[in-house]
Amino acid sequence: MSPTQLLSTSISSTSSAFLAAPITFKARNQNVSMASKKPSICTCVAVPQEQKNVYTTQVSRNANIAKLQAGYLFPEVARRRNAHMLKYPDAKVISLGIGDTTEPIPEVITSAMSKARLLFRAEALSTLEGYSGYGNEQGEKPLRTAITSTFYGDLGIEDDDIFVSDGAKCDISRLQMVFGANLTMAVQDPSYPAYVDSSVIMGQTGQFQKDFEKYGKIEYMRCTPENGFFPDLSKVTRTDIIFFCSPNNPTGSAATREQLTRLVQFAKDNGSIIVFDSAYAMYMSDDNPRSIFEIPGAKEVALETSSFSKYAGFTGVRLGWTVVPKQLLYSDGFPVAKDFNRVICTSFNGASNICQAGGLACLSPEGLKAMSEVIGFYKENTNIIMDTFNSLGFNVYGGKNAPYVWVHFPGQSSWDVFSEILEKTHVVTTPGSGFGPAGEGFVRVSAFGHRENVLEACKRFKQLYK
Amino acid sequence: MSPTQLLSTSISSTSSAFLAAPITFKARNQNVSMASKKPSICTCVAVPQEQKNVYTTQVSRNANIAKLQAGYLFPEVARRRNAHMLKYPDAKVISLGIGDTTEPIPEVITSAMSKARLLFRAEALSTLEGYSGYGNEQGEKPLRTAITSTFYGDLGIEDDDIFVSDGAKCDISRLQMVFGANLTMAVQDPSYPAYVDSSVIMGQTGQFQKDFEKYGKIEYMRCTPENGFFPDLSKVTRTDIIFFCSPNNPTGSAATREQLTRLVQFAKDNGSIIVFDSAYAMYMSDDNPRSIFEIPGAKEVALETSSFSKYAGFTGVRLGWTVVPKQLLYSDGFPVAKDFNRVICTSFNGASNICQAGGLACLSPEGLKAMSEVIGFYKENTNIIMDTFNSLGFNVYGGKNAPYVWVHFPGQSSWDVFSEILEKTHVVTTPGSGFGPAGEGFVRVSAFGHRENVLEACKRFKQLYK
Repeated sequence: MSPTQLLSTSISSTSSAFLAAPITFKARNQNVSMASKKPSICTCVAVPQEQKNVYTTQVSRNANIAKLQAGYLFPEVARRRNAHMLKYPDAKVISLGIGDTTEPIPEVITSAMSKARLLFRAEALSTLEGYSGYGNEQGEKPLRTAITSTFYGDLGIEDDDIFVSDGAKCDISRLQMVFGANLTMAVQDPSYPAYVDSSVIMGQTGQFQKDFEKYGKIEYMRCTPENGFFPDLSKVTRTDIIFFCSPNNPTGSAATREQLTRLVQFAKDNGSIIVFDSAYAMYMSDDNPRSIFEIPGAKEVALETSSFSKYAGFTGVRLGWTVVPKQLLYSDGFPVAKDFNRVICTSFNGASNICQAGGLACLSPEGLKAMSEVIGFYKENTNIIMDTFNSLGFNVYGGKNAPYVWVHFPGQSSWDVFSEILEKTHVVTTPGSGFGPAGEGFVRVSAFGHRENVLEACKRFKQLYK
Repeated sequence: MSPTQLLSTSISSTSSAFLAAPITFKARNQNVSMASKKPSICTCVAVPQEQKNVYTTQVSRNANIAKLQAGYLFPEVARRRNAHMLKYPDAKVISLGIGDTTEPIPEVITSAMSKARLLFRAEALSTLEGYSGYGNEQGEKPLRTAITSTFYGDLGIEDDDIFVSDGAKCDISRLQMVFGANLTMAVQDPSYPAYVDSSVIMGQTGQFQKDFEKYGKIEYMRCTPENGFFPDLSKVTRTDIIFFCSPNNPTGSAATREQLTRLVQFAKDNGSIIVFDSAYAMYMSDDNPRSIFEIPGAKEVALETSSFSKYAGFTGVRLGWTVVPKQLLYSDGFPVAKDFNRVICTSFNGASNICQAGGLACLSPEGLKAMSEVIGFYKENTNIIMDTFNSLGFNVYGGKNAPYVWVHFPGQSSWDVFSEILEKTHVVTTPGSGFGPAGEGFVRVSAFGHRENVLEACKRFKQLYK
């Protein structure tokens, strides 16, 4: 494999180093007997060399995917980071960009996945007693029960409303398959890019309108300092689906109980479905709802997706869940949960049993305590970053209830600010405009990082902006 | 949680017992402090009790999902099995139905996931040095390299053509998102239900036509004993996509090199794309191609999806891959791989890093040897089942190159045979008609089972049919 090929394999939002030395492997396996055999006959269909590059099928490319602008945001950020690292091979690049967790998974949780704790261990998979094959597509009952009691204890959510998944991002696309191409949707502007991009892919949107930096047919609910990052619902057009993330990625703001009550009423008045993303709920410091289901009547107009990624450092382990209350009905009275279950059973085979064992450990008293400590550490990082930008006279938002700091650079282009910070401090951030047009002029600084890196990054920010 | 609720949670294709005692957990977590708080205000939106069940949103149900008939096949089989177990609580029910693996994962593989072997260990996730967060959506390079060299050594597939996933079933739906609603597709009849069901969900099909037991707009390529389970391509209408599984699930038949050469030529003549499912390739006994890419020119008309599930007992661990050669182009010359990568980055966050470490161990020399032994064990089961039905005078197909035996019951209804076998022998099989109309009159018997269960099941078959 040539270096250029190796380079070309690195299309990705991040690079993980936990596996190494491909060459060893290639060398080892090249002699393996069951490797495929060279074809012996039928040169009849062999295509002459010069034609190889010109043959195209007669299959039309999906016009919806062709609507997508550039790459998905985070791979784009990663590409620019990688280009920077090639330009400055000796620079100590610090990434406060894509919001990837950096602190170790608490041992009480990994041991459940690897040693002999709790109800499951990986070794057991190599024993007759411990082996398990296909699990329930919806997740193992004990984990569903633990999620219900831990996060929805007295909110009337039942175990069979919980669908365990390999992450909220994955469930968002499965939800889009459930909704189909003909529904209309609204998103907070700015918002996590997966909502919009998955809508584009499913064909729910029009073309991208360069002048507005928006896709047609999507309702962008503007969230800025002027409205306290909560949309003016009186100006929001009715849509079938409303994606709403609180605590919010990227702005770091959290909606109050009163605001979410208005949102639920708005959905009820319009007969809309709220897809509530609570992936950062455990970062909440204020007394705001951690679940949409804390709002009376929400079960009839909302479903909720969440994740272990930012609680237990499971970004690479992959585990999340979605709550679809049986009270949530389509206009014809059919339960949304039944269609979601059908898509789960057709397009998914359940989260890894090993990861589910880890999730169960996360929700044990020890696991909850350990997760709180990890979250507390990142919240300290958040304070350090907020203090830094405040001391430099910037208007800084978010942070208090989320691991993201939303820094305002009025009148500047987010990508320009991103590039200047990267060029002059070797720190990777995320340009606000990547989350939507209302993010223009902002940069998102993630609090996920080792303490010394966060301190070093803040030192460089102070040098740059003093 | 009431018993009825517990019962209602068991919608699933299988039941796994590796996690237990939900009650303990619920009890433990009910006192956890961060559990959601009761809402204090806004009874304004609280809906009176009597209205609770009548409120519907104004969101229309996805008409495509409404086309789906009954449940996904395997959950349907599981429901009937569970009903049978309630009817005969003391019966020793043996499942040779859904094709779930039963033998332990070789220790050399689990230890890579759980102890300190190879390049990764779960404990390392609880160390600063060993921790990794988001991985490459496409999979870790060493695993992609190992898959290339192990399965596609000299076929011109490159590492960046490999996309690691959480299973072939999941990738099939992601491929459908890439293809979109406007492409036409063909499937072998009978075939693995996920191809058709995911097409229905994506809106590629018409309504289900009860008279033919077929969905409109899908080309069903009849595969029966008469044509050696390879379709008469002269009678197949041109479609954009051709799903083709060899060794086949459910018929157990494998296409020869000559047959696959004709298939590739057929695709090339029509400008179609073959989605080749090679999930059972390692079960091949004959000298048939284990990959479509053994056929010259296939890279321009085919992609291939595969899985560790049936090789390493990873049905519950979840790991697979899809090969999309950069030579595969849409009619406008755009590479299919680029759109697949875009969907992967938007709808997926990579397979679990723990499972990828296990996959890497699978492809070490020791892992390959261990997988071959597990496969050999299941192939012995297959022989036992084939000998049994042969000795009873049935026409038996498949088996030799796949872990499935396809038994003919001429003139009978598959579901009737399924029910009679379950009722009289307490053995769960899978009705052939569940895989397509050409499967009517057949029953699929899976070779995945403990030896004593397979022997016991065969004893009961002999008592029933002697």
